[in-house]
Amino acid sequence: MSDERIWTAALVVIGDEILSGRTQDRNVAQLATWLNVQGIRLSEVRIVADRTDAIVEAVNTLRARNDYLFTTGGIGPTHDDITVDAIASAVGVDVVDHPEALAVLGDYYAAKGGLNAVRARMARVPDGASLIENRVSGAPGIRWGNIFIMAGVPHITAGMLDRLTGTLEGGRPVVSATLGCWVAESEVADLLRQTERSRTGLSIGSYPLFREGRVGANFVVRSSDQAVVDAAMADLSTALTMAGHQPIAGGI
Amino acid sequence: MSDERIWTAALVVIGDEILSGRTQDRNVAQLATWLNVQGIRLSEVRIVADRTDAIVEAVNTLRARNDYLFTTGGIGPTHDDITVDAIASAVGVDVVDHPEALAVLGDYYAAKGGLNAVRARMARVPDGASLIENRVSGAPGIRWGNIFIMAGVPHITAGMLDRLTGTLEGGRPVVSATLGCWVAESEVADLLRQTERSRTGLSIGSYPLFREGRVGANFVVRSSDQAVVDAAMADLSTALTMAGHQPIAGGI
Repeated sequence: MSDERIWTAALVVIGDEILSGRTQDRNVAQLATWLNVQGIRLSEVRIVADRTDAIVEAVNTLRARNDYLFTTGGIGPTHDDITVDAIASAVGVDVVDHPEALAVLGDYYAAKGGLNAVRARMARVPDGASLIENRVSGAPGIRWGNIFIMAGVPHITAGMLDRLTGTLEGGRPVVSATLGCWVAESEVADLLRQTERSRTGLSIGSYPLFREGRVGANFVVRSSDQAVVDAAMADLSTALTMAGHQPIAGGI
Repeated sequence: MSDERIWTAALVVIGDEILSGRTQDRNVAQLATWLNVQGIRLSEVRIVADRTDAIVEAVNTLRARNDYLFTTGGIGPTHDDITVDAIASAVGVDVVDHPEALAVLGDYYAAKGGLNAVRARMARVPDGASLIENRVSGAPGIRWGNIFIMAGVPHITAGMLDRLTGTLEGGRPVVSATLGCWVAESEVADLLRQTERSRTGLSIGSYPLFREGRVGANFVVRSSDQAVVDAAMADLSTALTMAGHQPIAGGI
């Protein structure tokens, strides 16, 4: 188990609108959840401004140390959409028009006044790229090597991820289960630590909450081995009960 | 205007629960909004796992190139709370017990069974740190130099930020205003670019949306000079109207 290959991905969120607080990001949680089903772990995320140097630094650092790199945002037709140029610069290739993307955009805009120079900007890709179908709007996503360039609008990104489902090599998905308890986590810190250490490949996260004047916590048990999760959940439930607390399956 | 000092901050979100997709982060948007009121810009965010090496790398890179560095998460009493140790390691100091934090925690837990070794873990700080009052629960936040170590639970972080309001040196807040329009952004890309270029210190973001089968966009005008924002909003409104579109103040 312990020498099992772990596949990782990183995400670069590109967008002044996230850093200004105007827009609440949804793509981190969405991508994390989708990746886990593919057997890939989201290892780190960077949120950077619409600036070429910031994008290049993040892309080159993260693509080198992960199996896959995803980006969201900045692939539209306006002046603040610089993702394609920045990634081409990061990987050292030219930006070229993708013939299939031009055809897709030509169809999409046929009844909307046709393809013009501005709309054709969305057919520009780093040289050597392939396309990721966009089922929601016109502009396709882009794959270049291990880099996946996705939309910023979450439901468009969702459609692109749906197209990629099952196409990326991964390992075993992480399995998780949750126990809740109306107890301050400080009271059970030792038993959590002991339970985690008792099994290989197990991690336990403790997430406090404060609700209606009550203090509680959720304990999330994670492993890539279902049997380890099941056994750890049983251990933890027993330990909490023996310490005088009432574990609540599924969390609170 | 153009040589005005711009104050920046970065954020390191520490937490496997964000990277697993289990928890939707709220602290990025919350901190960004608060920082702007202080006249400080959030320049970049990294979301890293509960791993010392990942925290150290992010903290040391980002604190060197920003006026302020904030972290959220990992300051509780359980085994997965490693933020204080990681940051002490990053800045090269020991971890020590903070007497005032011990007193605060002693008061907080007086009616809850008293302070024990596990709870006292939350009084550990990097040597030389001061405290940030936590008005919601027991464990205080921590300031060490330009590093602000905050809770992960958003409403606890909110209370800590409230305590810091007005205490950090910043510049002029960024002012923004929004115009919406039921138009594909590709149709107005040129006039957006021209409007942005026509004034110094102005940025215009274009954010497409797809609602009930209609295509639209919001255009967000930003500057640290209110007069520039006002003038740019008037320019943009006129340009959209002359191009046959209907600008909607406040956005759609």
